[in-house]
Amino acid sequence: MSGKRPPKSRAHKQGLPPGTPVYLGEEREGAVRITLIDYDETNVVETPIESADQCLPFKDKPSVTWINVDGVHDAALIQTLAERLGLHPLVHEDILSTGQRPKVEDYEEYLYLVLKMIRWDGVRSEATFEQVSILLGRGLVVSFQERPGDVFEPVRQRIRSAKGRIRTMGADYLAHNLLDAIVDGYFVVLEQRGEQIEQLENEVISRPSPKTLGQIHRLKREGLLFRRAVWPVRELVAGLERTGSPLVGDALRPYLRDLYDHTVQVIDTSETFRDMLSGLLDTYLSSLSNRMNEVMKVLTVIATIFIPLTFIAGVYGMNFEAMPELHWRWGYATVLVTMAAVALGMAVYIKKKKWM
Amino acid sequence: MSGKRPPKSRAHKQGLPPGTPVYLGEEREGAVRITLIDYDETNVVETPIESADQCLPFKDKPSVTWINVDGVHDAALIQTLAERLGLHPLVHEDILSTGQRPKVEDYEEYLYLVLKMIRWDGVRSEATFEQVSILLGRGLVVSFQERPGDVFEPVRQRIRSAKGRIRTMGADYLAHNLLDAIVDGYFVVLEQRGEQIEQLENEVISRPSPKTLGQIHRLKREGLLFRRAVWPVRELVAGLERTGSPLVGDALRPYLRDLYDHTVQVIDTSETFRDMLSGLLDTYLSSLSNRMNEVMKVLTVIATIFIPLTFIAGVYGMNFEAMPELHWRWGYATVLVTMAAVALGMAVYIKKKKWM
Amino acid sequence: MSGKRPPKSRAHKQGLPPGTPVYLGEEREGAVRITLIDYDETNVVETPIESADQCLPFKDKPSVTWINVDGVHDAALIQTLAERLGLHPLVHEDILSTGQRPKVEDYEEYLYLVLKMIRWDGVRSEATFEQVSILLGRGLVVSFQERPGDVFEPVRQRIRSAKGRIRTMGADYLAHNLLDAIVDGYFVVLEQRGEQIEQLENEVISRPSPKTLGQIHRLKREGLLFRRAVWPVRELVAGLERTGSPLVGDALRPYLRDLYDHTVQVIDTSETFRDMLSGLLDTYLSSLSNRMNEVMKVLTVIATIFIPLTFIAGVYGMNFEAMPELHWRWGYATVLVTMAAVALGMAVYIKKKKWM
Amino acid sequence: MSGKRPPKSRAHKQGLPPGTPVYLGEEREGAVRITLIDYDETNVVETPIESADQCLPFKDKPSVTWINVDGVHDAALIQTLAERLGLHPLVHEDILSTGQRPKVEDYEEYLYLVLKMIRWDGVRSEATFEQVSILLGRGLVVSFQERPGDVFEPVRQRIRSAKGRIRTMGADYLAHNLLDAIVDGYFVVLEQRGEQIEQLENEVISRPSPKTLGQIHRLKREGLLFRRAVWPVRELVAGLERTGSPLVGDALRPYLRDLYDHTVQVIDTSETFRDMLSGLLDTYLSSLSNRMNEVMKVLTVIATIFIPLTFIAGVYGMNFEAMPELHWRWGYATVLVTMAAVALGMAVYIKKKKWM
Amino acid sequence: MSGKRPPKSRAHKQGLPPGTPVYLGEEREGAVRITLIDYDETNVVETPIESADQCLPFKDKPSVTWINVDGVHDAALIQTLAERLGLHPLVHEDILSTGQRPKVEDYEEYLYLVLKMIRWDGVRSEATFEQVSILLGRGLVVSFQERPGDVFEPVRQRIRSAKGRIRTMGADYLAHNLLDAIVDGYFVVLEQRGEQIEQLENEVISRPSPKTLGQIHRLKREGLLFRRAVWPVRELVAGLERTGSPLVGDALRPYLRDLYDHTVQVIDTSETFRDMLSGLLDTYLSSLSNRMNEVMKVLTVIATIFIPLTFIAGVYGMNFEAMPELHWRWGYATVLVTMAAVALGMAVYIKKKKWM
Repeated sequence: MSGKRPPKSRAHKQGLPPGTPVYLGEEREGAVRITLIDYDETNVVETPIESADQCLPFKDKPSVTWINVDGVHDAALIQTLAERLGLHPLVHEDILSTGQRPKVEDYEEYLYLVLKMIRWDGVRSEATFEQVSILLGRGLVVSFQERPGDVFEPVRQRIRSAKGRIRTMGADYLAHNLLDAIVDGYFVVLEQRGEQIEQLENEVISRPSPKTLGQIHRLKREGLLFRRAVWPVRELVAGLERTGSPLVGDALRPYLRDLYDHTVQVIDTSETFRDMLSGLLDTYLSSLSNRMNEVMKVLTVIATIFIPLTFIAGVYGMNFEAMPELHWRWGYATVLVTMAAVALGMAVYIKKKKWM
Repeated sequence: MSGKRPPKSRAHKQGLPPGTPVYLGEEREGAVRITLIDYDETNVVETPIESADQCLPFKDKPSVTWINVDGVHDAALIQTLAERLGLHPLVHEDILSTGQRPKVEDYEEYLYLVLKMIRWDGVRSEATFEQVSILLGRGLVVSFQERPGDVFEPVRQRIRSAKGRIRTMGADYLAHNLLDAIVDGYFVVLEQRGEQIEQLENEVISRPSPKTLGQIHRLKREGLLFRRAVWPVRELVAGLERTGSPLVGDALRPYLRDLYDHTVQVIDTSETFRDMLSGLLDTYLSSLSNRMNEVMKVLTVIATIFIPLTFIAGVYGMNFEAMPELHWRWGYATVLVTMAAVALGMAVYIKKKKWM
Repeated sequence: MSGKRPPKSRAHKQGLPPGTPVYLGEEREGAVRITLIDYDETNVVETPIESADQCLPFKDKPSVTWINVDGVHDAALIQTLAERLGLHPLVHEDILSTGQRPKVEDYEEYLYLVLKMIRWDGVRSEATFEQVSILLGRGLVVSFQERPGDVFEPVRQRIRSAKGRIRTMGADYLAHNLLDAIVDGYFVVLEQRGEQIEQLENEVISRPSPKTLGQIHRLKREGLLFRRAVWPVRELVAGLERTGSPLVGDALRPYLRDLYDHTVQVIDTSETFRDMLSGLLDTYLSSLSNRMNEVMKVLTVIATIFIPLTFIAGVYGMNFEAMPELHWRWGYATVLVTMAAVALGMAVYIKKKKWM
Repeated sequence: MSGKRPPKSRAHKQGLPPGTPVYLGEEREGAVRITLIDYDETNVVETPIESADQCLPFKDKPSVTWINVDGVHDAALIQTLAERLGLHPLVHEDILSTGQRPKVEDYEEYLYLVLKMIRWDGVRSEATFEQVSILLGRGLVVSFQERPGDVFEPVRQRIRSAKGRIRTMGADYLAHNLLDAIVDGYFVVLEQRGEQIEQLENEVISRPSPKTLGQIHRLKREGLLFRRAVWPVRELVAGLERTGSPLVGDALRPYLRDLYDHTVQVIDTSETFRDMLSGLLDTYLSSLSNRMNEVMKVLTVIATIFIPLTFIAGVYGMNFEAMPELHWRWGYATVLVTMAAVALGMAVYIKKKKWM
Repeated sequence: MSGKRPPKSRAHKQGLPPGTPVYLGEEREGAVRITLIDYDETNVVETPIESADQCLPFKDKPSVTWINVDGVHDAALIQTLAERLGLHPLVHEDILSTGQRPKVEDYEEYLYLVLKMIRWDGVRSEATFEQVSILLGRGLVVSFQERPGDVFEPVRQRIRSAKGRIRTMGADYLAHNLLDAIVDGYFVVLEQRGEQIEQLENEVISRPSPKTLGQIHRLKREGLLFRRAVWPVRELVAGLERTGSPLVGDALRPYLRDLYDHTVQVIDTSETFRDMLSGLLDTYLSSLSNRMNEVMKVLTVIATIFIPLTFIAGVYGMNFEAMPELHWRWGYATVLVTMAAVALGMAVYIKKKKWM
């Protein structure tokens, strides 16, 4: 999903019966890549997978199996996988519909989690959104992403190197680790946003420009999308904690509470940013008004001083025959002095009004 | 209902006892068209209906009967139908009053659902609203619309071609399918709105004009109507899920949950659009201020440079006899140089102030 | 109550013990008018009443008795009536204090309802507010209004002509009918407001003027009063539905639910209007900015073109003896051409900036 | 408390252990005045009190004893009193800390109520805030105020003259009467605020000035303080109703409900005022924009008409030798006519643009 | 933590397994300083600590032990301490991650509290934020701060001098005292903020400048951070009151309720400040508009009076041969009178428009 036109996808499904799996993400080329990691306390097997059937032998082993699917645009492949895993048609449909609202659903045999993985695209300086579906079954985690590249690499490393508790704990802990990695990714995006806001704050005070305005607008807009992706994750984690499903062990509880705290922190920060951006727009507008005011004052000072003087000069530029002042000896000097007096008077008035 | 003057209709009923059925939609010509589809796993009968009594034989058959009424402006016909179906006077009244808030009501013998069908009118580029009442009885669904033309065609196709599960499931699944088709229609309207907003965003930054303002205003206004039509649908679906009525089977539960998710998604997106439009108006105003600022600066630059020069020229245009400078050899040159110096000074000042 | 200075009334009671009945409405002349309607399925008696004692014989008859009091400013009369009806001092006080917040209170012997009747004053084009207290006892309804004239006439007609169910049902149905008539009156006011808003929307876009601003302000202000009167009615109706009082029969339940829906619809519409008015003010301000912008552009165009030209003319208006250009043959023509070139250059610049 | 710097007081207590009684109100001179009223159905004793010990004999009599303390700045005296009454250190501390949030607390032996008494200072046209603590014990009410002068005089009068029910009811009814007198005082303040707002509304439309702005700002600010003092009183009254304490009799229930209604009314009105003031500021700004617009139009009209004319005059004021037009017979007339034509053209243009 | 870039810290942990303790505060030099105070009713021991093991003998004594850690940047030391105290890895991690949201967590053996200590930096006139973690165990309180210097000094004094109840009560009372000292610190910061706001209010009305705007913006921004730090403390205290943990004795209940009230007061005041600052920005903008208006009026007055006069002078400065007026005897006088008349007319017009 490009993160730009959220509802577009759904509209294409108009007229199809509920539960029809249709891929709704952006057009994509290239094969779907599936990798399988199977591990227990002592062994790790990591292997790419060609066909859905290759997963089956691992599914029922006591070890933890993690199947990661990069790309959900190959309908046939996903179809086979969904059948092998015995997914409900609505779950199958949700995996493919890449505009899902984050949620958790309990289908007894498995829990279905869907949320957004948000990564920072350093080149285009913006966040990219990608839907991740996670199925948590007995000893089995299946994760579906839209594109290759993800925030799960550290989890894989930990499995490979047996770092931390991951090899000694179950599939639920693995699922939690994936969620945790995704939420950690939110912090990275927030940090980038925070820096951009800080930069804008300096700009707004020192040199507000239409470009600044465009950037405030863009950041506000991106904040809306971020917010929409992140708010429901709190419910998701709380739902996971509350669910009575035997798939989520008691040992996971403190970790879920921890994850919940992180999610609240993400939401908190994003709300603070939202308020900051609102304040920034107000400040921008006030800053503009300030500058306009300053410009107007200069204009008024110049006009107030010179327009009357120009008028006086104009009077003595008239060509009437009978203008006695013109023939006075000190006529010119008198006028110059008068002008100086007028200018001074105006300047004093302006000073009093504090325009300069 | 035209979607423009929501409360008008109700006011016409002032003074009537509660439960008096009065048609409150727009004036309409043409006969009310009733079609009946009766189906079970093996057979489908589809037939237009002339009089309300024609429905009776189908009503109590074990098959699922769907009666669709296009137009509710023929009071007599609806009256007969309401009697044949044994409707409560308040339900009868609600079907005709086309300003109902979406809701579900349980009358034991049947459930009464009312909500808005929103379709995109491509010609006038705006959404049209139409009230749809759905009665869900035992093996019976009756749907009332205001005008011919609806979003139900795909459902009819599925019944005819036995595509999906529809032929094997009951009347509750049919009612769900109608709701689902209506909610899918919301996505179509949202997508169109989304595109219009995106277009406006480009316009606001690049070339804000009073026309842009008018369009932002129009989209905000339409958003209010959309919001009013869509928010209560969430409650409606939740109410349907919660109701203990035997008319809603357990097998429907996951589908209702799915529908609920879609409704939340619709509301979410529409709220995001609302925020975007607010942001757009702010940006529009800021953009205007920016332009005003720019215009003012040019005016000030021109005035600041030329008004003092004009004054100097005015001074030496005076006709005093005794103006020694006029007779100096380098008088003219001196003045020109002075003017150039003043202009340069002003230009430097302006440069320093960053006005150009 | 005039609807303009909501809290004024209460302040006059400072220092009085709680439960002291003091009339707090506007100063009024003229006698309080009391009418009594007593009816059952077969008979209707309608009679004006002179003294409170005249009510007594009707009070305990099995028929339904409706006593309507037009005006609560005659303290003595209301006092007698309150005594005959056995009202709690706080209820007596509330009937006279015309700034009550809509509410329902259960005093076992009777239910006390108080809310605002809002009618549209076509002459002054504004809503008028009036407090209505309704006592629902066993077979007895007493309604108190501030002024003659109300929205109950259709209810009276229905009683007289035995139209609808009213003659066959109890006092609770009568009370519901009065509430329903009041809520129907809200719709009338909303419709008028809706038309005024629509008219303003056209004005704001086509020709915004200070008068428009005044009207937006007035409508917003009236909306606040309307809102304050209408919001608590929802609670009132819900409270009536929830109350376990035997005075409210089970048969009334669907009617109360219907009334509740209407109230929610009123609130919904009034909130939509509120949002529309906010949007209208924003649009008004933007519209003003647009116009200001346009005016500024014209000023700038004129000034930018002519100020430099005037300066050039000024230069050659100087009276220096030694100005060679003045004696050139083509001096004048050269200057005119120069001026044309400068004007053209400015015009091109302006064109490029898109100011005209 | 001056009502201006709410948190100042608390800061002075930094570093003291919790429960340390420190007087935090404004510096005050003069002795603390204590008066005692002891009454039952037949007798009233009213006496000033010198030392805390004088209260003791009254404390345990079956009659109702009301001790009113004017001023809490004499730490020693309050200390003795607190000991004699057996107050919890935290209550003792709260009585002296004059920035308490309104609340009710149940200490079994007594209920502790604290809220703000707000009175209108007619001289300075603003509300003054004062903290009132009320202790409700068995047959005992102790009230602490910051300054002499209060809204309780009518209550005293009623006790003296045995008016109303007060002499026949218990200490809880007395406490309720004090609360009721305080809430009645809120209405007085609201009324004054209402009148000020009404006056401002006229000013804003007819002649907005910086003074108007200052007053809107002041009223908004005062509204914030009022709001902060009044909102929690609703909770206080509700808490009093809900408390299971035997100190609050059942007979008090309807009176508390009545008081609750009044509090809600106060909050409602104050919220309406808040919205009105917001609307007023918007209208003020729009009004300013309107005026600015008008001023700009006049400037533009004058400049647009005269700048081109002045330019023409300037051209023929040039001193070129070879300017044929100057020697034409009708040169002057032609130029005058041209000027008139230009002025007319501009005027028509301006008329078309509707600037005048 | 600098309080400026809230989410930065978390982002650095991306890729680490949950429960990995990483110090996320600002880079700091200098050794971590640990002090231990052990006291009961009769004795106090106060000693600096070098290694974590030194704490052990005190941990299980019946006396109350308070270990205060100044600085959490020495990972190894904190690691040892965490092990000795038997902390859950997530708690260990939270102590080091200095961007925690205030919360309380019950780990049976101990309660973990984390919140912000906010102090006023008088030199830089701004609040500084520091994370404080408090562990409440059996007879043990461990507090972790980021930097030396805190608000706990008065608590230490009270322990040393046996002032108040602290020496006679348990560890829970000590923890409460620390919380109370932190919340008291909030009041100090609020008071400073209140004074700054008051000062700004005077500035905004009397002499608004861009500097004022910058300060309003800064205060709003700081308010957001303050708010984010303080809001969750209410939940924290409520959670402490609600927890069924035997570590919190019943005697603490009234103190916690008191603390809760203080927290609500802090939040209330901070919300009031927030509203004041919003109002201030509005007033600032209106004040600017006022000034702009005034400047524009002066410009318009000058221009309106002198531009027409200058034009007249220009006309008679033309060099046409045939300008009869130039030769009239009273031509000059007539023009001067005409000019005076025009000027007067304009002045009257301006007076009527109330521009001066």
